[in-house]
Amino acid sequence: MKKIAVLLSGCGVMDGSEIHEAVTAMLAIEQQGACYKCFAPQGEQNVVTNHILKQPSQERRTMPAEAARIARGDIALLSSFDVDNYDAIVIPGGMGAIANLCTFAMNGSNCSVHPDVERVIKEMHNVGKPIVGLCIAPVLLVRILKNILVTVGNDSETIGAIKQMGGEHQVCNAAEVCIDKKNKIITTPCYMLDKCLKDVAMSTSNAIKTLMSMLKE
Amino acid sequence: MKKIAVLLSGCGVMDGSEIHEAVTAMLAIEQQGACYKCFAPQGEQNVVTNHILKQPSQERRTMPAEAARIARGDIALLSSFDVDNYDAIVIPGGMGAIANLCTFAMNGSNCSVHPDVERVIKEMHNVGKPIVGLCIAPVLLVRILKNILVTVGNDSETIGAIKQMGGEHQVCNAAEVCIDKKNKIITTPCYMLDKCLKDVAMSTSNAIKTLMSMLKE
Repeated sequence: MKKIAVLLSGCGVMDGSEIHEAVTAMLAIEQQGACYKCFAPQGEQNVVTNHILKQPSQERRTMPAEAARIARGDIALLSSFDVDNYDAIVIPGGMGAIANLCTFAMNGSNCSVHPDVERVIKEMHNVGKPIVGLCIAPVLLVRILKNILVTVGNDSETIGAIKQMGGEHQVCNAAEVCIDKKNKIITTPCYMLDKCLKDVAMSTSNAIKTLMSMLKE
Repeated sequence: MKKIAVLLSGCGVMDGSEIHEAVTAMLAIEQQGACYKCFAPQGEQNVVTNHILKQPSQERRTMPAEAARIARGDIALLSSFDVDNYDAIVIPGGMGAIANLCTFAMNGSNCSVHPDVERVIKEMHNVGKPIVGLCIAPVLLVRILKNILVTVGNDSETIGAIKQMGGEHQVCNAAEVCIDKKNKIITTPCYMLDKCLKDVAMSTSNAIKTLMSMLKE
């Protein structure tokens, strides 16, 4: 059974991992005969946002403790991640992907990346294991790996930043999957384009189907 | 298009709504041609739990702000709930269902119920609109409505409490649905029995299918 790591950054679209994308990706992994294990990097979230007021909160929350809510407590620190133990890694979107895993939300294309995230993505890429980026997460992948092909849907500002960081962008419709065969990068727009959960579920399901075929090649 | 209310109690299995149950229920509602709207009662959570340490935390969090994470910010206060506007209500499980919506986790069968939750459930029941309880949430329904038939799987202690509160219990296997036709109560065990997300998704999907047929009768 293929083992897929899911890299979370908190719990909630405005300051962590987008919950619907994370859960439908985890569901698709199981439904397609593989299993998942959740990871989060050590450390505080750079942002905590009240999801009703849509305003910054003064609370301090850590990525692992919040991400553990999506993982029902069953989560490991990314520092313990061993590339030999996983066949692929999936990164859901949400503000956490660009404000906790890296600082793209604050610093744009010159952003820094959490060192554990950088290590794991580079190691997976170096050994030729597939990486799946949902929604806005492809931005993080381009910042780390530079010359890769990804999609974030059709947002022109984000596409500009991707090109500035050395990446290539493919405009995609909702639920379409962008495949960089050479680099084994799979990306899909999810909530960058889709407006409802059922379409996001199709987006993540299509991405995981593409991943499973890639793992059989 | 049928409009289904989803009653949340926070965000996370140990102190709020169980995230997988909530998301797969919301997904099933959309996939079966209806739409959902999330609600949470006003007020602080009675419990906040660190989901890694599995220990109480000293933080204070409110039900609406945390539940809004599952709802992507699109949530309404339960005090504004008008039974005329919704065809049914779904209550996911998680500790929040028995520690925030009522105090069953602390006080057992003599527990008190959040007044807005009591009003809404009684009003829905009085006008003959279906109520769906997932996982441990049926306990809350029995505390409010007393003589109804529900399932929480096969946990003997919880079954004992359900009987003490005036309810009737039907032992169910994973993903099985218990139907109280007279009272229009639909319940299914989810994580009370199931050990993986894909089976929980089947449990919620079966419950929502049963709901949609009931709404067509």
